[in-house]
Amino acid sequence: MEILIAEPSGFCFGVKRSIDMVEKAIAEKKPNIQIFGPIVHNPQQIKALEDKGVKMVNSIEEIQPGTVFIRAHGISPKVFQQLKSKQEVELIDATCPFVKVEQENAKKLSEESYQVIIIGEKNHPEALGAQGFAEGSIIIGTVEEARALKEVPKIGVVVQTTLEPEAVDKIVAELYHKAKEIRVYNTICQSTKMRQPAARNIAEKADLMIVVGGKNSGNTRRLAEVCSRIKPTHHIETAVELKKEWFKGVSKVGISAGASTPDFIINEVVNAIKNMDSDHVK
Amino acid sequence: MEILIAEPSGFCFGVKRSIDMVEKAIAEKKPNIQIFGPIVHNPQQIKALEDKGVKMVNSIEEIQPGTVFIRAHGISPKVFQQLKSKQEVELIDATCPFVKVEQENAKKLSEESYQVIIIGEKNHPEALGAQGFAEGSIIIGTVEEARALKEVPKIGVVVQTTLEPEAVDKIVAELYHKAKEIRVYNTICQSTKMRQPAARNIAEKADLMIVVGGKNSGNTRRLAEVCSRIKPTHHIETAVELKKEWFKGVSKVGISAGASTPDFIINEVVNAIKNMDSDHVK
Repeated sequence: MEILIAEPSGFCFGVKRSIDMVEKAIAEKKPNIQIFGPIVHNPQQIKALEDKGVKMVNSIEEIQPGTVFIRAHGISPKVFQQLKSKQEVELIDATCPFVKVEQENAKKLSEESYQVIIIGEKNHPEALGAQGFAEGSIIIGTVEEARALKEVPKIGVVVQTTLEPEAVDKIVAELYHKAKEIRVYNTICQSTKMRQPAARNIAEKADLMIVVGGKNSGNTRRLAEVCSRIKPTHHIETAVELKKEWFKGVSKVGISAGASTPDFIINEVVNAIKNMDSDHVK
Repeated sequence: MEILIAEPSGFCFGVKRSIDMVEKAIAEKKPNIQIFGPIVHNPQQIKALEDKGVKMVNSIEEIQPGTVFIRAHGISPKVFQQLKSKQEVELIDATCPFVKVEQENAKKLSEESYQVIIIGEKNHPEALGAQGFAEGSIIIGTVEEARALKEVPKIGVVVQTTLEPEAVDKIVAELYHKAKEIRVYNTICQSTKMRQPAARNIAEKADLMIVVGGKNSGNTRRLAEVCSRIKPTHHIETAVELKKEWFKGVSKVGISAGASTPDFIINEVVNAIKNMDSDHVK
């Protein structure tokens, strides 16, 4: 069985940067390292950090004196201020720099009196964080939601960095009917723009696609969706989910992995598939 | 035979305003009234003005001392300056106020370092006029042309006032991939936004559509195109083009007219169709 790995797969710039920042803090023996919300959307990566003594906290109240990381997806200025007001806490901002650009653009558009629209997932921390930078802004995830909007004089748009560009197209085309002026900051990041076509390309060549990454990872789910339009596709978090029956009659298997999937997970999956022929995977 | 007339049909605000301005000049006996290019894209309307002694001129050289009108579609600042430098000429600007907004937005975007794109017809005087307000601007008329563009940091867009909104959608959706920031002034005018759906609505109900207006009128051609997607459609300039065979078995005929089609032409067409049953039209 031939294995084709889409490039890029795995950690994007922002995810790698955030994990590196935490690893550095561990190496420097910073006191009581806590992360406010999952730093990236990958349970195995989170577990790996927890095994090194890092704590995940989900509310301001849980935070103890020590070191606190802001997740790669960013947070709203309001939550940032709440974290800052905590006593005896060193706050380290691991927000992805490309998410920062999205946040800053949302802020700028709001200050210039645009009705700010964040094209994104309604409950995604990145979209919610960006929303906090623009008063009265709304998150729009579908063409239908865009169509239902009332007309306003000026619409300003930013985009969740990991959305599928082609899906955003259709929403932008609707929004332009809703205002005399529309200003769009296309904040989809370069990693997303490269990863999705690369996955598509491998899906064209393969008989079966395995997409590796957190089930809670939006960008991984979209990779799986993009691939499933082309070839049979399975979205797994780890190698133990692989099923031998998927590979019957398959001569080429394609692999793609989300922006928050660590290399050790991808390697495990690749090795497990390699061992398929010799029955090492049940 | 029932006749259904789409509303609005005929003169839009900007066309009516420009013709009224010329009529006023005639009534005031202004000297040597000349129009630089066809004031509106309707040969019969032009003929009606010529019959009143108005002259059409197509080049700066032809202009004689007297009164000179700038057409409803507007002109570039460069041509405006050339006209202004003419001796013994009173220059009257009949540019449609909505075209002025398009021109001003093109200028503003250019001054703010956007690569200005005019979504419009390549050889249309309105698009060419607007182009003159933004240095280095380009006219884009199709999705393919948008797709072929190189990436630039900032794209600023204005739209020819009479384009079909749904066609512009698709171009905007392409353009947003070509820059990190895109700013769109949706300068399609209210008249266009109302006229096209009204024509579509009548086409749904009718067995046959007659679209009345200049063959050189872009907005009339688009009306005919929009209607022809729904029902058999004929684009005519005047009643003499009507053919009895078109109406065989037709019980409902729909009529729509372009923004530059004068009422007297529409009335002639309606009357000719009314007289169909009694064989008054050959």
